Amino acid sequence: MSTETKTAAENAVDQTAAKITTGPLPASYKIYVHGQTHQSLRVPMRQIHVGGDEAPVTVYDSSGPYTDPAAEINIREGLADNRGTWLQERGDVETYEGRAVTDADNGFAKGDKLVPAFPQQRAPLRAVGDKAVTQLAYARAGIVTPEMEFVAIRENNGRIKAWEKERDGHDFGASIPDLVTPEFVRQEIAQGRAVIPANINHRELEPMIIGRNFLVKINANIGNSAVTSSMEEEVDKMVWATRWGADTVMDLSTGRNIHNIRDWIIRNSPVPIGTVPLYQALEKVNGIAEDLTWEVFRDTLIEQAEQGVDYFTIHAGVRLHMVPMTAKRVTGIVSRGGSIMAKWCLHHHRESFLYEHFEEICEICRRYDVSFSLGDGLRPGSIADANDEAQFAELETLGELTKIAWARDCQVFIEGPGHVAMHKIKANMDKQLEHCHEAPFYTLGPLTTDIAPGYDHITSAIGAAMIGWYGCAMLCYVTPKEHLGLPDRDDVKTGVITYKLAAHAADLAKGHPGAQDRDDAISRARFEFRWEDQFNLSLDPETARDFHDETMPKEAHKVAHFCSMCGPKFCSMRISHDIRAEAEKAEGFAKMAAKFQEGGELYIPADQVEPAE
Amino acid sequence: MSTETKTAAENAVDQTAAKITTGPLPASYKIYVHGQTHQSLRVPMRQIHVGGDEAPVTVYDSSGPYTDPAAEINIREGLADNRGTWLQERGDVETYEGRAVTDADNGFAKGDKLVPAFPQQRAPLRAVGDKAVTQLAYARAGIVTPEMEFVAIRENNGRIKAWEKERDGHDFGASIPDLVTPEFVRQEIAQGRAVIPANINHRELEPMIIGRNFLVKINANIGNSAVTSSMEEEVDKMVWATRWGADTVMDLSTGRNIHNIRDWIIRNSPVPIGTVPLYQALEKVNGIAEDLTWEVFRDTLIEQAEQGVDYFTIHAGVRLHMVPMTAKRVTGIVSRGGSIMAKWCLHHHRESFLYEHFEEICEICRRYDVSFSLGDGLRPGSIADANDEAQFAELETLGELTKIAWARDCQVFIEGPGHVAMHKIKANMDKQLEHCHEAPFYTLGPLTTDIAPGYDHITSAIGAAMIGWYGCAMLCYVTPKEHLGLPDRDDVKTGVITYKLAAHAADLAKGHPGAQDRDDAISRARFEFRWEDQFNLSLDPETARDFHDETMPKEAHKVAHFCSMCGPKFCSMRISHDIRAEAEKAEGFAKMAAKFQEGGELYIPADQVEPAE
Repeated sequence: MSTETKTAAENAVDQTAAKITTGPLPASYKIYVHGQTHQSLRVPMRQIHVGGDEAPVTVYDSSGPYTDPAAEINIREGLADNRGTWLQERGDVETYEGRAVTDADNGFAKGDKLVPAFPQQRAPLRAVGDKAVTQLAYARAGIVTPEMEFVAIRENNGRIKAWEKERDGHDFGASIPDLVTPEFVRQEIAQGRAVIPANINHRELEPMIIGRNFLVKINANIGNSAVTSSMEEEVDKMVWATRWGADTVMDLSTGRNIHNIRDWIIRNSPVPIGTVPLYQALEKVNGIAEDLTWEVFRDTLIEQAEQGVDYFTIHAGVRLHMVPMTAKRVTGIVSRGGSIMAKWCLHHHRESFLYEHFEEICEICRRYDVSFSLGDGLRPGSIADANDEAQFAELETLGELTKIAWARDCQVFIEGPGHVAMHKIKANMDKQLEHCHEAPFYTLGPLTTDIAPGYDHITSAIGAAMIGWYGCAMLCYVTPKEHLGLPDRDDVKTGVITYKLAAHAADLAKGHPGAQDRDDAISRARFEFRWEDQFNLSLDPETARDFHDETMPKEAHKVAHFCSMCGPKFCSMRISHDIRAEAEKAEGFAKMAAKFQEGGELYIPADQVEPAE
Repeated sequence: MSTETKTAAENAVDQTAAKITTGPLPASYKIYVHGQTHQSLRVPMRQIHVGGDEAPVTVYDSSGPYTDPAAEINIREGLADNRGTWLQERGDVETYEGRAVTDADNGFAKGDKLVPAFPQQRAPLRAVGDKAVTQLAYARAGIVTPEMEFVAIRENNGRIKAWEKERDGHDFGASIPDLVTPEFVRQEIAQGRAVIPANINHRELEPMIIGRNFLVKINANIGNSAVTSSMEEEVDKMVWATRWGADTVMDLSTGRNIHNIRDWIIRNSPVPIGTVPLYQALEKVNGIAEDLTWEVFRDTLIEQAEQGVDYFTIHAGVRLHMVPMTAKRVTGIVSRGGSIMAKWCLHHHRESFLYEHFEEICEICRRYDVSFSLGDGLRPGSIADANDEAQFAELETLGELTKIAWARDCQVFIEGPGHVAMHKIKANMDKQLEHCHEAPFYTLGPLTTDIAPGYDHITSAIGAAMIGWYGCAMLCYVTPKEHLGLPDRDDVKTGVITYKLAAHAADLAKGHPGAQDRDDAISRARFEFRWEDQFNLSLDPETARDFHDETMPKEAHKVAHFCSMCGPKFCSMRISHDIRAEAEKAEGFAKMAAKFQEGGELYIPADQVEPAE
């Protein structure tokens, strides 16, 4: 594939490159913060520049080099190797000749139907001998890795001092520090309370952390399916999802070309990539669940670990004796992986091979540092089925598996529901913390009612914000198309923005230090009629601007001291300014509040960061 | 305006009539349930017919005659007089020659700019002598009015027996009955815990109830403004909003033609109409807040009471001494009414005329049964300002005013915020219950973060669902255009559906008997691949169907036993069916769950209702 004469498929890829959305968001500048211990670290952040005499607002940036005007993007080459030297310096990995790609890996796609392999194939890395090369193993050994320092800097969003103001929030027993230090990260990982999904073969990664004492993260699902979608769209969707804030991306592809599409995604992804290996294994046995074997599954794990998949959803908690517990459910088993394994167990009248071989799965994961996302195969698919016997039986098993994985130094987080009415959400969080020994929780929503298909990003954002507040570490997005069809590009964006706002609402409610800074900045902009700042500071500047311009398209309206909602006479904010002006003259009225002046001290000085050129 | 020769403006109205969306929702049939005590009552409900052997699902119906194919709709004539005989039978009202409409009432609009008066003008009703004609007065006197029986039947959604199954919910101390009886309604109103907004001059009304022990309601705001919008759009928006589920509508018009537009809205509205009379009063003094007087305001109250406005937002809680409390706020005063009154107080260095004349306001309201929506003029407009001194000082004053209004037999509910992070929402509900003596709470959202303009229907739906769960009786919708511009028709629909799902999520969490029926029906449809039923049972069947058809447009896909999200091999629900089939053959597996069979007994038999022809 590296000859000068391009194939038709390669030309198609070239065209695809043009589709990828690059460039900064409005008024935004990429900065990179260097590490203290590991000087070479370049931790990306986004600074939103604001008018008036306000300091720029620094926000978490999951978008990778795509929003850096100085970065050259070529998806045929993939992103730069961030982590190669870190891995070499640890001295516990070796390259080797990886497993050969088979026709089955790509669903026997041939000719024009075969998506081309990613051009730059690197030999895979694995641990030397029986060494565990996981962040958990290093943390337990007292080692602060570059990955740990990277996420520590990242979590502080440019803040360099401990938060000294009163903390405003209710954290339900979480232990959120005033400043995230690399040592704090190490401790949290060592205790299993946080995970850095970072396969040693995903060297393009910008590490991030998932844990209750860190910022709430969100995941976006992408993936082709047997019915529709293509590889090109999927790479674009990954970039698109991270542009708007997805912290991890799950590739849930089924059908043909799974292997090659995944390669393209990982090589171009700055965020951790998760998969459900069972999907590909099922394709290898032509979609017949009963024909699945441990051998096929094991082979698939190695295949994906070599490619650099950062976390595996493994439905090892679905056990034979639990299947009858779902008999009276309104919606049965709604997890794809869960239903496949239930079918397998029942057909063979045997315990699940995932459960029986779980220790062997750990052996694979520890060699590459693939994190476990222990799948909730029996999650409820309707309000009626929430918090039932089947769901909690599985959760207890996931707790057992967590201990087994931890014993082998593997990183673990736990998947959760699903469909749950509001009054039953807290019990999910409480039981998860108890049964799974504080391993991070990662939920899908939950949806708080079943009656609004077409709006399930909203029914689920309600549950997601709440469980995020209660302690859930990562929220898997739901798009407006949930239950109805495949999400397109707009749906992906809507889902990501909706989940970013839910995660942020949770951060505010938990009292994360500094989380409210962005809210305050946008509120000041609103009060001072700085329309451009209001757009630029919002999660989706494009939509905010478009909505404004629908009613008030003229440029003059962007500096107007009123808005079309009320008109000039009824503008409460304009009147508030009049009141303050009047009050300033009058006696007995408090001085106008001092401008927010702490930015310079509390946050990283501009000269200590490396701006994107 | 009643001559045979039509003016240009009248012709314009005729064209408008065609714009009104009428006709039933998909697979839906209007039924009317008769009263027991008041036999002539026709309480509307919507039955959604479902495939298979399932009973139809009866849902609350706020849409009025517009969705009844048997009803003749002519917006020039308005809706039928539902309540005239009820009012006459009480024998405590009289017609009189109402206040003459002035040019000021319509903002001095003239000629082609003047929206024509509603053609069929009825002489207004008022109480005889000093009689209070409020539902509260009747309730205290032990009288169960037709309005009370109407809402009792309506709240049960066709259920005729007390709920006998275990109640699934957490109600935070509410007292939700197993069956809503007219006597229960009377008691709740007598205690001030519920309100039926029902001006005696709004005879077209289909009564509804607002209270913590009833279904959570939603309000939609409409209204023209000085900058844009027209009367025609507003009538259409009212019908449109109620079609999708708005339980009340607030007409927040400013600018010209306020009087005439409001007449058109009320005469055509099946739901209670609320206003902020201060807006019109301000127009009458040319938008100069300082020029407002009690006389102008009082005149406006009478004008609107005669037209049939069902509830007034009165910002009487904003007092002079509270204004300095807002000095250090990030966003000052964001309520239009609040800021106008604050400006007036400060300018005149006087206590608010609304506060000083509150008893006189009560005298007016009791003669027409206009309910109070005591305005939260100092609600927070940003996360930073939530739950501050100003906000809670006003809330305490609203509690005082509640007692004054109750002493004059006036119905009262209380407005609430606004912008509040999740961890501060419950305190709002708790303090409101305490300070306002359990008068119903009515909140705007609250928005749980400030950073997502363009998505504030979602940031606020999170807070709305939560506070609805905690006990808030009515949720004022927020559209995607909040903070950015004026909502159009699509925005109104999005806002209403979003708030319907939030209110329903709250009903589920509170454990309202039967609330889960619709969820269960849609979930069974989903599990059984009854796509049409899934669309028809959803809050927005059109969007659900459109989203499905984007991926799977063919009719065959509507009967497909899989969906495009997963494809046939990966369909968990299909596999679940396989599992059940396999298990049925095998031993030791529970029998498949019996179909839901209680509909016939628990709900009103089909022969006891009057179907729409």
